Order: sequence, then C-alpha cells, then structure tokens
Amino acid sequence: MLPARFAPLAVAFDSHRLDAVALVPGANFRRLLEQDFHQNERPLIVFAFADGRIAAIVPNLELGSFAQLGLEGDVFDWRDEEGYQNAFDQLAARYPIKRLGVEGQRMRVFESLALRKAFPSIDIVDAHRDIAAVRLIKTADEIERLKRAIGLSEAALEATLQQVRAGMSETEIEALLIGHLFSAGTEALSFHPIVAAAENSARPHASARADYRVRKGDALLFDFGGSFGGMRADITRTVFVGHCPDAARDFYQTVLAANAAGRAATRAGVTAHDVDDQVQKVLEASAHARFARHKTGHGLGLDVHEDPYIMRGNHEVLEPGMVFTIEPGLYDAARFGVRIEDNVVVTAEGADCLTAFPREIRVVG
Amino acid sequence: MLPARFAPLAVAFDSHRLDAVALVPGANFRRLLEQDFHQNERPLIVFAFADGRIAAIVPNLELGSFAQLGLEGDVFDWRDEEGYQNAFDQLAARYPIKRLGVEGQRMRVFESLALRKAFPSIDIVDAHRDIAAVRLIKTADEIERLKRAIGLSEAALEATLQQVRAGMSETEIEALLIGHLFSAGTEALSFHPIVAAAENSARPHASARADYRVRKGDALLFDFGGSFGGMRADITRTVFVGHCPDAARDFYQTVLAANAAGRAATRAGVTAHDVDDQVQKVLEASAHARFARHKTGHGLGLDVHEDPYIMRGNHEVLEPGMVFTIEPGLYDAARFGVRIEDNVVVTAEGADCLTAFPREIRVVG
Repeated sequence: MLPARFAPLAVAFDSHRLDAVALVPGANFRRLLEQDFHQNERPLIVFAFADGRIAAIVPNLELGSFAQLGLEGDVFDWRDEEGYQNAFDQLAARYPIKRLGVEGQRMRVFESLALRKAFPSIDIVDAHRDIAAVRLIKTADEIERLKRAIGLSEAALEATLQQVRAGMSETEIEALLIGHLFSAGTEALSFHPIVAAAENSARPHASARADYRVRKGDALLFDFGGSFGGMRADITRTVFVGHCPDAARDFYQTVLAANAAGRAATRAGVTAHDVDDQVQKVLEASAHARFARHKTGHGLGLDVHEDPYIMRGNHEVLEPGMVFTIEPGLYDAARFGVRIEDNVVVTAEGADCLTAFPREIRVVG
Repeated sequence: MLPARFAPLAVAFDSHRLDAVALVPGANFRRLLEQDFHQNERPLIVFAFADGRIAAIVPNLELGSFAQLGLEGDVFDWRDEEGYQNAFDQLAARYPIKRLGVEGQRMRVFESLALRKAFPSIDIVDAHRDIAAVRLIKTADEIERLKRAIGLSEAALEATLQQVRAGMSETEIEALLIGHLFSAGTEALSFHPIVAAAENSARPHASARADYRVRKGDALLFDFGGSFGGMRADITRTVFVGHCPDAARDFYQTVLAANAAGRAATRAGVTAHDVDDQVQKVLEASAHARFARHKTGHGLGLDVHEDPYIMRGNHEVLEPGMVFTIEPGLYDAARFGVRIEDNVVVTAEGADCLTAFPREIRVVG
C-alpha cells in the first residue's frame, strides 16, 4: 500500500500498471513532498513502489536537505567524484523494476539513460499527465496563494504602465516591470516576461529588444507574472502607446470578445474542448480569422504550463478547483499582435476570474 | 558536409559516429543559431544530419520566429489540436536516423519517447558533453558580457549588504538582492538566489526562509548572480551579521585559503583534477576536513552549470578561454556554512579572476 503522501499517485499506478513511479524535483515533487530541490546536472530521484516501499537516488551534498523530507526508505547517495551510475546500479540490484512511470516533461534524457543502463529491460512510461493530476484540483490554500501572486503582479503592471513613454526600449520597459514585480512582493518570476511592441508583439514568444524604441501607435504586449508560495500568475495585457490606431481597434475587440466568450463558457461539467471551441468560433467568425495561431489556454499552478490544456480535442471534463488561463490572441506578423490573458478557477456555476486588471483598450505614455 | 554554423558539431558527430544531432532550445541552440526559444511542453527540435541536411520539428505558432533563423531545410510543423507525434513520424519517413546524438541534460524524456515511437530502432546517444563543447572556449565578446554581468551583480550585493540588519528575514534580504540585481541592469537571474543564514547556510542549495530573522553572530551566505547578454554570473560571499563569532573565524579562513589555492592553481595546461586537488588538499589538511561536501566548481557561460567541471577525476586539460567557478565551502550542519565563489577565465599564465568583490571577513548590519 502506498504511504499516505504518495496515495494521490494511485491513479497513475493503476492506469499504467506500474511497478514504480519516479519523481524528480519540480512541481509534483513539491506538492507531494512539500519541499523542492533544484533540478540541475546532479540526478535526485525518489522512487515510490507499488508495494509501498520508498527509495531514492540523492547527491551526497543534498543528504542533509533530503533528510528533512522524513521519507522512510533506502537512500543511494553518490558523490561528484565517483559519478551517479553506481547509485542507479545499486538501486537496480535491490529493487527490480519492470515498468516505471516518469514525468516525461520533467525527467531529462540523461536520467532515463542511466535508468536504462541499470535496468536493461525496463519499460519507461511517460505518466506525466497522471502524476501531475495530483495537482489538478487546487486546494483553497493554493488558490489564495495564486490570488496573492496575481494581485501583486497586477500592481506591478499598473506601476509599469504609468512609467511607459514613447522612446523607451522594450528591454527598458521589461526592466521596469521586473523591478515592480519584486518590489511588489512576488517571490520569483513565473517565467521570463514577454515585453514586445509593434511587429514583435505578433510573435507569441517574443524576446524584448534593446534596439527597438516604442513609438506612438505601437501595440505593446506584456505577458508576465510573479509567483507567491510557489503559485504562478500568468497574465497578458496589450496596450497602445500614445494612441490606438484605427486598424487595431476591431482586431483588439475581437480578441476581447473571444476572451469574454471563454470566461463565459467556463463551468464545471463542460469540457476543455467546449471552452476552446467557444473562443475559436469568435476568432473564426471575425474578419481576422487568419491571424489566429494557438489554443485558448493551459492549466496554471506550481507549474506555469500544466493540465488542463484548453484546446479542441481535449474532452477532459472541467471540475471545480481546476485553474487555467484564457488567452486568445491574434497575430498579424507585419503589424502587431494582441493577446488578452486571464486566470480563472472553475466553480459549479461558472468561473471565478482571478485576474481583475481592466481589459478595455488602454493608451499609455 | 555540415553547414557553417553547425561545423563546431563535427567533434560530436565523429566521436559518437552519429547520423544526426538533435538540438533543443537552450544554451547550445543559442550559441549555434544565435537565437533561443522557450523550452516548454511544445517540442521544437532542429536536426543536423551528417550529410549536411537540416530538418526541424516546430510548433506551428513558432513558425514566424523560427523562420528568422534562416535555416534551409524541411520544417515539420504541428498544431496543438493535432499533437506533435505526426511531425515526428513525417520526419522519420523522410529522414531515416539510426544513431542520434542528443543533449541529455536538456532534452526531456517525452521528446525522446516521441523519437523512439517514430524511429523504433533508433539509438539515442547522450552527446551532451560534445555538443556543449561548442561553448567550452568563450569568445572575447562572451567574456565581456560575463564581466558586465559580474560587475552589475557585485554592485547589487554591495547595495544589499549595506541594507542588511539583524531582525530581517531571509526572504526580505533575498527580495532586496533581487531588486538590486534588476535595478543594476542585469537582464535575468542566473538562477534563483540562495540567501541563507545560520544553520540554513550549511545547506548547499538552501531556500530563503520567511520565518527566520537573522541574528547577531549569524553567518549569512549569498549565492547569486544576474545575467547580461545571456552570460550568467555566479558569485558566493558569506558575511556575518553584527559580529563574526570566534568559532567561525578559522572555518572562514580555511575556505578562503582553499579558494585562493584554486585561483593560484588555475592555468592553461593543468587539468580540472589538478585544480580541485589543490583546493581539496587545503580543506583536508584543516581541522574542518569533515565539513567538506562538494567539488571546486563548474563551467559557466550561457548555462550556469556546464563544462568544465572542476573535480578530481576529471583529467580534462584547461585551455585559455575556459571559464569556471572556484567555490570551495565547508558546512557544519548544526551551526553554519561558508562558501566563497569566484568566476575565473583561464589564460596561458594563470587565471583572470573576473569577480572582484572583497573576500575578507565582513561584518554587516
């Protein structure tokens, strides 16, 4: 029988008929073990076995921190000078594993190759989705921490927008935003922010440019967030510098209508597909349909991209306590992109929108 | 024949007898292709083939950014709603691969499983070290960018130390440091900083505590850095709050002597082993030998942990232009840890120490 704190992994064990689950540092590790470790070139892996035993491969220099987890089980530690393969081999000698579930988006290839070397006939199964499902329904405490992360992030955006002026570079504006995020009290960046103007805003994952200074009439897109208690805000707003060009107004209003449609469609019992479908229909019915490029959103929590993915074809039923982004966008590569992203939590009746930053066209500078 | 910008991969091809090398977003990608992408749940992989052809798997929404790379070759794009496997299968149909070199510390298991599904008999080889070797010798421009990152980071530390007072929490001090890093002008955190006092400083990868307020007599360890132009500073200094307890003085001086020995031992022609050996001998000959826990250092550049790893057993010969950390530490779990970390570049005659922050015992607050 699984120890209490690994009990939420039962679904992963059952659905993939696993002998063991391997956890590496990251969001699932943090949620199940209430502590996290840096993921670096030194493998640290906790193995939970179907029969309830626990074992771990731990870099020697992390033994002190690892002991604080209070896990009962064999620890195979290794030192830099000898390398890690021997720890994998010792694990294999004592714990035969035929079918191992791993976090496919988190475990790296060098770790899986060390496993394959130690267990030559092992079947490594990507059970990422079922393992991450332990975080799918957020606790009340997690939602409070996310609300706090969002509130601090929105304050940072407001402070930034009040300082934006035509002539500033994208990187200068980015530095302002980051400074405000930390001075507001977020603990870390949810991800490196996107601050992109004019045609750069039409790149969904743009990098800020030091050599482009924003001009009047530019769209200016901010996709950013800070974290609090590990929970990560992820907010996008697109504003205009000086004035909003006429050509951008209907474009903007179309994205806003799609965003509103997504928020309105969200409730327990509908599927992720349904929500994306409502959003995409707004974009597809518009004069700008050819500028749509991506799905509606992704789950949000200790990871910035996690289940549920809000896209057509995902017939997962939404349940109260799921949290995700609604972030439709339109991208005209030659001119500008607009994206408006909110963070919502599913309730029985609909969605609580956790982001409160105004969505109307805003002119700054 | 490999196209010019992939020519530095020739060693990886030869030493592993590869048909192809797969590059995923990250430092090697950035160095070879002069642009980077976010690594997220959407696979984006560039394949360089031994015969000079190039192909890529690219998320549809990144096609615009990808086109800017100017790579000539087949692009297999995929959309969220259909998933990525078909793109891998199409690649396999057109480009048979028997032996593929990957960045084992960067590629994730879900990507390798998609490759194994598309190429059932593929041999996936961890060629991380040989691929990353393209970044082993830093360019003059990279060293200039690193110097700038270090200068800005040191200014941020000085500003922080002037504000530290007994009674502040570790997280408050961390927030000060992060704020100063960004206001100084670093572009990003090299990694989430370590700010740890008293017995927490004895954990090599500690997290700042909101509920611990620093007291007079505490050791206070900062391991941190900001980046500039992608190059990442990584600096550690350990200071004392109010006063330095007598029990810590010899402990501190031992680490400082080990750090100095490492800097003195560094020059072209000696091995990574030699440098670590000189450092460890100082620790081992001291009264505190049992508190040593880790190797001397790691390479530093676009990644914060990369070759060369400065440890016994690594008989790699140091060459001019290699950059790494020298960061001996001693950790008494019940009381305090001390680590002093510098960043050096190897020269023919010795090492240029890029970090200039004073190393003498410093009392703050």
